[in-house]
Amino acid sequence: MQAQFAAAKIGKYATSESGDTLEMVERPSGGLSFVLVDGQRSGKSAKAISNIVARKAISLLADGVRDGAVARAASDYLYTYRGGKVMATLNILSVDLLSQTLVIVRNNHAPVILIRDKEIQEIDDPVEPVGIRKAIRPSIHEYPLCEGLAAIVYTDGLMYAGERKGQRLDVTQCVHELLEAGQPNPQEWASYLLNQALELDEGRPGDDISVLVLCILPYDENEVRYLYARMPLK
Amino acid sequence: MQAQFAAAKIGKYATSESGDTLEMVERPSGGLSFVLVDGQRSGKSAKAISNIVARKAISLLADGVRDGAVARAASDYLYTYRGGKVMATLNILSVDLLSQTLVIVRNNHAPVILIRDKEIQEIDDPVEPVGIRKAIRPSIHEYPLCEGLAAIVYTDGLMYAGERKGQRLDVTQCVHELLEAGQPNPQEWASYLLNQALELDEGRPGDDISVLVLCILPYDENEVRYLYARMPLK
Repeated sequence: MQAQFAAAKIGKYATSESGDTLEMVERPSGGLSFVLVDGQRSGKSAKAISNIVARKAISLLADGVRDGAVARAASDYLYTYRGGKVMATLNILSVDLLSQTLVIVRNNHAPVILIRDKEIQEIDDPVEPVGIRKAIRPSIHEYPLCEGLAAIVYTDGLMYAGERKGQRLDVTQCVHELLEAGQPNPQEWASYLLNQALELDEGRPGDDISVLVLCILPYDENEVRYLYARMPLK
Repeated sequence: MQAQFAAAKIGKYATSESGDTLEMVERPSGGLSFVLVDGQRSGKSAKAISNIVARKAISLLADGVRDGAVARAASDYLYTYRGGKVMATLNILSVDLLSQTLVIVRNNHAPVILIRDKEIQEIDDPVEPVGIRKAIRPSIHEYPLCEGLAAIVYTDGLMYAGERKGQRLDVTQCVHELLEAGQPNPQEWASYLLNQALELDEGRPGDDISVLVLCILPYDENEVRYLYARMPLK
C-alpha cells in the first residue's frame, strides 16, 4: 500500500493572509500527521490563533504524544493563552504505522468525509471547537489501513462557499461524483473541491478555504517518498 | 513570483527506515521552512538522532526563532541530550516573506547548490555537523527572492552514490545538465537526481538519500497553495 496526501488552500478574498493553518509532521514511531486549524474570524488575528493551536499540536505530535491527547492539550493551551476568549476548529489526520491505522481527530463542526469499501460516509458527531472552555473533548475515529480507504477533511469555508448567493457546496455530493468518475486521486480531488467552491464564490472566496485529501492506494513498487509544496508570493 | 519545493527521499537498502528526517513548517511571520537532518549511522538509531534534531528545529521555527539561532539551539540540544557522543548533519532552507529572502543554513559537509541568474555555484564553506561539541556555528547564506533563484539541498547519500563501484555522483554536473535542458521544475529535478543516485547504486542505495529542490518561479495568477505527500507503506 501507499499513502498519498494532497491539500489545496486559499485565503478569504482581499485579506492579507489565510486564517487557516495546515501543518504536516512525521510521527516519531512512523507515519505522518496533518493538522488543520481554522482560527476565529479572518486575516491576521485568525492566523495568530490558528498558528498557536497548530504549533502546539505539531510540537506534541513530533514528541510522540497520541492524537487525542494532542487535541486536548492544544485546546487547553489556547484556553489558557487567550482566557477562553477565542476559538478555533481543529482537525488531526494521521497515518499511524505503529497501530497501522488511520486516526481522525475532529473539533470542527464541518464533517469529515470517509470512504471505505467504496461507501461514502460523513463523520459528523457533535463536537465543540477548541479553546472556548476547559476540558473540551475531541471526536476520535480510527480505521485499519487498507486499500481504498480515504478521508477528506476541510474547513467550513468549503461548505459555506456560495452562501452570499444563497447556495452552498454539497461536498458529499461532489465526492460521490468524483468516486463514480474513477480511482481516488488526492491531488485532483483536492483541486477539484477547492475549484468548485471558488466557482460558487465567483473567484472571491467569502472565507478561508482549506481542503485535505488522504487516500490509501495500491503499492506501486516504488520505495521513494515524495513531498511537494507550492506557495504564491506577493 | 511563486515558490515551489519538492523533495525525494529513500532509505538505505535493507534497513527498516531512513535515518534522514525531512520536516516542513510554516513560518509564523510568513513563508515556509524545510529542515533536513541526517543522523549518524543508519536505520533506527540514526532515525532517533535525526528526529531529535528536526523536532527541536521545527518547534523553534514555528515559534518564530531566526534560522541561525535554531541551528545553534538544535546542536546544543543534541549535545546536551546525548553528551556529545552522536552527530547529525543539519540543513534549514527557508523562504522568509518578512525579509523577502531565501535563507540557507548549513551544518553539513555536503554542499548546497545555488542557482542565480542561470549561474550555478556550490555553497561549501567548511562547517561541522551538529551535536559533537558545544558552540557549533552554522554557515548562513541569504539571498533576495527573485525569479530564477533556486537551491538544491541534499544529504551525503546523494553524492556518495556509486561509491561501492568506485564512482560518485557529480551532483553539480547533473544540475548543469538539468538547467541546460529547460526551466527549473522542482519535482522533476528532485526525482531525476534521486534516480541518478539509485542507478549508480543499482537500485540498492548504500546510504539514506534525501534531496530537496526549491525554485522561485514566475507567478501564474493562481492564489492557491498546494501540498502533496506520498509515503510507501510496508
